Amino acid sequence: MVSKNTLKTIKSLATKKGRETHKQFVVEGYKSVCELLETTLEAVMVLVTEGLDTIEGTQCETITPKEMQQISSLKTAPGYLAIFKMPETHELPQTGRILVLDDIQDPGNLGTIMRLCDWFGISHIVCSKNTVDHYNPKAVQASMASIGRVHVYYTDLEKYLSQLQLPILVTAMNGTSIYKNILPENAALVLGNESHGVSSAIMNLGKAYTIPQYGTQTTESLNVATASAIILAEWLRTTET
Amino acid sequence: MVSKNTLKTIKSLATKKGRETHKQFVVEGYKSVCELLETTLEAVMVLVTEGLDTIEGTQCETITPKEMQQISSLKTAPGYLAIFKMPETHELPQTGRILVLDDIQDPGNLGTIMRLCDWFGISHIVCSKNTVDHYNPKAVQASMASIGRVHVYYTDLEKYLSQLQLPILVTAMNGTSIYKNILPENAALVLGNESHGVSSAIMNLGKAYTIPQYGTQTTESLNVATASAIILAEWLRTTET
Repeated sequence: MVSKNTLKTIKSLATKKGRETHKQFVVEGYKSVCELLETTLEAVMVLVTEGLDTIEGTQCETITPKEMQQISSLKTAPGYLAIFKMPETHELPQTGRILVLDDIQDPGNLGTIMRLCDWFGISHIVCSKNTVDHYNPKAVQASMASIGRVHVYYTDLEKYLSQLQLPILVTAMNGTSIYKNILPENAALVLGNESHGVSSAIMNLGKAYTIPQYGTQTTESLNVATASAIILAEWLRTTET
Repeated sequence: MVSKNTLKTIKSLATKKGRETHKQFVVEGYKSVCELLETTLEAVMVLVTEGLDTIEGTQCETITPKEMQQISSLKTAPGYLAIFKMPETHELPQTGRILVLDDIQDPGNLGTIMRLCDWFGISHIVCSKNTVDHYNPKAVQASMASIGRVHVYYTDLEKYLSQLQLPILVTAMNGTSIYKNILPENAALVLGNESHGVSSAIMNLGKAYTIPQYGTQTTESLNVATASAIILAEWLRTTET
């Protein structure tokens, strides 16, 4: 039995304000919930729609399908929902491989990028303050539990990158081909906003790189998540193999 | 002035059945509409919400915001919507670079893959019959007008691939690294369903390739659209540069 007040609190976690007030966020779906339970994140509560199997070895509360749909951020609630505490924030990373995001707006893109970083063993994503919140339900969903393994930070990028003792690689439409030189192993790789790319202030701090295009010139640019996939793969390929 | 009946017909294009009946599909958004008007696709009608600028050089019909929202498949109608005729289908491709999709279910993934193929100059995507319809509004949206430049076919993949006189490259979790050998320039590259990957019948027809993973073993697999991005980039890099 879960109180109405608790359900109301969970519902409030759909908004950034609610998440910041309670320092908690929501994940949905059996697989994502189970995977996040395996990480170092601390679960506050696991809810399962009555009639579904509970999760072995985990204390689950059952609620009605109607209650589940009310607190779900998905059109059709998958029936498994967990609330986790936001982990403490760490000091900004200063070494290694760092992915930097300049005003990414789409939570699905951010989630996909978290999943990619996890796949490629990149643990740190530093975002501009205007980048979408990585605890947004759509970002959490698209991250497929990678949110429990990748550290995401929000800061003033200009200030952060100016003091960083690492090469800064900026993705742009008119840079050097990513295949021309071997990318430095330890660096900050910057990806920009879906419409405007990387802001000029940040562009000036690094060296511009481009994914070569083989189609016709009329082709739309690449989506930021697929561009990330290509550049991250190339970064790892040239320095890890 | 657009009749109620016409609006009803447009609304019916949101479903596969409606699209197949009328042999037409819908695209929304100023940029996508303008770009598709530049392709060889034939526009049936272009609708603009009253108060917005019409598209230069194109005959536009204006409708009320309410009417636009009713026919839009987006939560917030962008105000520009065009109906295009489905182009005639061609013979299945037998040479060159062919992307093959085995039961891709998510229209957003299919749209993203169309956009990627367009970027990389790959003109042919051959899909299994159970792959999601590429005229699905979400697929059209994600393709960013690439749907006007890339040819998409639906067929019995087993039959098609069995008669194809090209190497068949299949993406799988346990194949040879895509970086180990140079991929053949002309080939059919197969990507599988989001949950189950490539079906075993098709797996047996080709050679398995894998994107190396650098993260921990607990990591979720890559999303099919980001996996496509990485493999297509590598395919083009090794054979075009």
